[in-house]
Amino acid sequence: MKLFRTLIPLREAQSIVLSHVRRVGVEEVSFDLAAGRVLAEDIISEMDSPPFNRAAMDGYAVKAEDTFGAAPDKPRVLVLHRHEPGSGSGELNEGEYIPIQTGMPMPKGSNAVLMLEYGRECERDSKLEIFKPVTPGKNVSFKGEDVRSGDIVLNEGRVLRATDIGMLASIGRNCVKVRKKGIIGILSTGDELYDPKGGSKGAIADVNSYVLAALTSVIAKPSRMGIVRDNYEALKAAIESCIADCSCDAILVSGGSSVGSRDFIGDVVEDLGEMLFHGVAIRPGEPTGFGIINDKPIFCLPGYPVSMIAAFEMLVRPFLEAMHGLKGAMIRQVFAVVSKKIPSAVGRTDFVRVRLYHDDHNGDGKFYVEPVRVSGSGIISSVTSSDGFVIVEENKEGIEEGEQIGVNLW
Amino acid sequence: MKLFRTLIPLREAQSIVLSHVRRVGVEEVSFDLAAGRVLAEDIISEMDSPPFNRAAMDGYAVKAEDTFGAAPDKPRVLVLHRHEPGSGSGELNEGEYIPIQTGMPMPKGSNAVLMLEYGRECERDSKLEIFKPVTPGKNVSFKGEDVRSGDIVLNEGRVLRATDIGMLASIGRNCVKVRKKGIIGILSTGDELYDPKGGSKGAIADVNSYVLAALTSVIAKPSRMGIVRDNYEALKAAIESCIADCSCDAILVSGGSSVGSRDFIGDVVEDLGEMLFHGVAIRPGEPTGFGIINDKPIFCLPGYPVSMIAAFEMLVRPFLEAMHGLKGAMIRQVFAVVSKKIPSAVGRTDFVRVRLYHDDHNGDGKFYVEPVRVSGSGIISSVTSSDGFVIVEENKEGIEEGEQIGVNLW
Repeated sequence: MKLFRTLIPLREAQSIVLSHVRRVGVEEVSFDLAAGRVLAEDIISEMDSPPFNRAAMDGYAVKAEDTFGAAPDKPRVLVLHRHEPGSGSGELNEGEYIPIQTGMPMPKGSNAVLMLEYGRECERDSKLEIFKPVTPGKNVSFKGEDVRSGDIVLNEGRVLRATDIGMLASIGRNCVKVRKKGIIGILSTGDELYDPKGGSKGAIADVNSYVLAALTSVIAKPSRMGIVRDNYEALKAAIESCIADCSCDAILVSGGSSVGSRDFIGDVVEDLGEMLFHGVAIRPGEPTGFGIINDKPIFCLPGYPVSMIAAFEMLVRPFLEAMHGLKGAMIRQVFAVVSKKIPSAVGRTDFVRVRLYHDDHNGDGKFYVEPVRVSGSGIISSVTSSDGFVIVEENKEGIEEGEQIGVNLW
Repeated sequence: MKLFRTLIPLREAQSIVLSHVRRVGVEEVSFDLAAGRVLAEDIISEMDSPPFNRAAMDGYAVKAEDTFGAAPDKPRVLVLHRHEPGSGSGELNEGEYIPIQTGMPMPKGSNAVLMLEYGRECERDSKLEIFKPVTPGKNVSFKGEDVRSGDIVLNEGRVLRATDIGMLASIGRNCVKVRKKGIIGILSTGDELYDPKGGSKGAIADVNSYVLAALTSVIAKPSRMGIVRDNYEALKAAIESCIADCSCDAILVSGGSSVGSRDFIGDVVEDLGEMLFHGVAIRPGEPTGFGIINDKPIFCLPGYPVSMIAAFEMLVRPFLEAMHGLKGAMIRQVFAVVSKKIPSAVGRTDFVRVRLYHDDHNGDGKFYVEPVRVSGSGIISSVTSSDGFVIVEENKEGIEEGEQIGVNLW
């Protein structure tokens, strides 16, 4: 039996992984299908929005000057503008008004909207009594007020939100360039595994390939490639077939990445390509490795589900984000006060599952955070019962009660 | 022209909306397709997980008692267990060991795993020198340690996460009951609107139905029903056809919900059913209404995109969450320090778009929050350039610098 290779610090492992990122290509999609995708271009508006001065309120388009001095006991009176047949809507003359609704273009000659409440129309002669003055520009939404032609409205590398779709619609962009979803091959290894979907039975359900597929699908396109038995030949054949599959951009293998006599993945990667590291100073997730075969990155992840999840969050997620050109992380952090010491050891990076809560007693609205008690990295309930995780850097001996820290939400 | 109806407080509007929620039905889906869906049953494990005692480390299965007293300068020596042909794996006798890998069942008679590092196998005679004692139970993951048969592992009303899929796999649940996605009919009204997807031109692009579809799709199933012209007959026909469409669980109409002479939606709802409120003390989003036609809830949302988004977040989202039986909100909050007063007026609830940032200068890791400057509710760039929003309750005159508040992320 071989002994474990030297552990490298997380930061070093991350920098090796990131130096082997190859950016995925670009595709054009209809704007309404782009939510959740990574934008692959700066979106520059080719128009002003709004495209013309328009009413920002329901009311009456007026010349503001005509309303000056109006008061409840001293109303000013305007007459309805009537345009001559064939002359379009015409231009507002001094002393005239036109009823207008929110969003409608401001008639020529008008420069303010008087709110409905401050006028009274006389049904008989269409005259309008005004009880309050308006200043020029009041209740008008000006051309280009939201976006000017030439403005960058959305930046490359942004994950498009629901409301961004509205921005694209408002400036008339019906196609946008987004990153293609990288195809990620996923293999589980282990003699004891059975596929819970297949209905077959075995000692232990293959949890990992389903979790990896679900985690990956948020940004990329997972391709589950089944369970491989734990022997050198089977593993080599499976990896070779993955590599030969040109559609695959990267491969995630879980299980078989330790130093037991049956842990062949390291040997297979070494024989087919190059292993760049095997063993990272993180807990859980220590036996994680990373290599390159025919230019394709391959992650060797631990078999224990929680170790695999930790390795995914610390190494695979940053890789996938960089691969898709994402700027800014997808994962969300909340800020919380540590209410119970989060233990850790100096010399390794710890991945601690935590619970968040509000303190109803003092009602300060703050989040408090405490670690979830676990006795081993096999405990997937430590993940499902937690709200997120904290990464304790290797130079820290835990995080003390009372400190404020960022908690990554699941 | 009719004057605006009395505004009701947001809390009252929310309670009216929530009292008209009808829970959507239930469907069964394969566990691996359930991420992001709302669980419609408590998941009770029918098995222990792990299903047997297993090794939590690579190493040697031993009787812990046989290792007591071992030390680097005084190793204890064990012999390899050899099982008799035809007797299965047999039972470990005193003084014996069996090599074991993470995840494998513990052999009968063994009660601990000695880590690889603390033993040395002699290749010639398969004897094992032990340099460190282990306590009984060491490096063993016990039957039922993660989950016990009968445990509720996931609760009804939870939005299933990627890692929950792993929990379902690990306990052999390959089908789960989730809430069906409610079908939400979406209409935009306005004479000035054109469909940015259709390539047709017009004064103003229909932003709202695309934003509503994208916002809705996170939890329900949007069904865009196009643009309706702003007249009573067209609007009535469109609403009647939506209502007649049995697949629709609720309807969102945007635009035409104000008090201009062309704002017919309130009349249509009153004529076909009942309007329960029309006008809420929120800004933006004031002209929001809610009614019931043939038992189907209908939201009348403002036409200005930002007003509509505000009304969606404050009234429609809670409705959709309740309709899908979701427990706990989907939207995520971060806690932040106000760095610039967030202005608001007493007597109405304000929906303020805000920007979050870290203060690199003092490097305290905290989030700071400041309002995005806007001059009108038509400014959709106030949404796309912001990180989230803050809801300032109606009894507050803004939020002062230095206060800590929860910010809802987009």
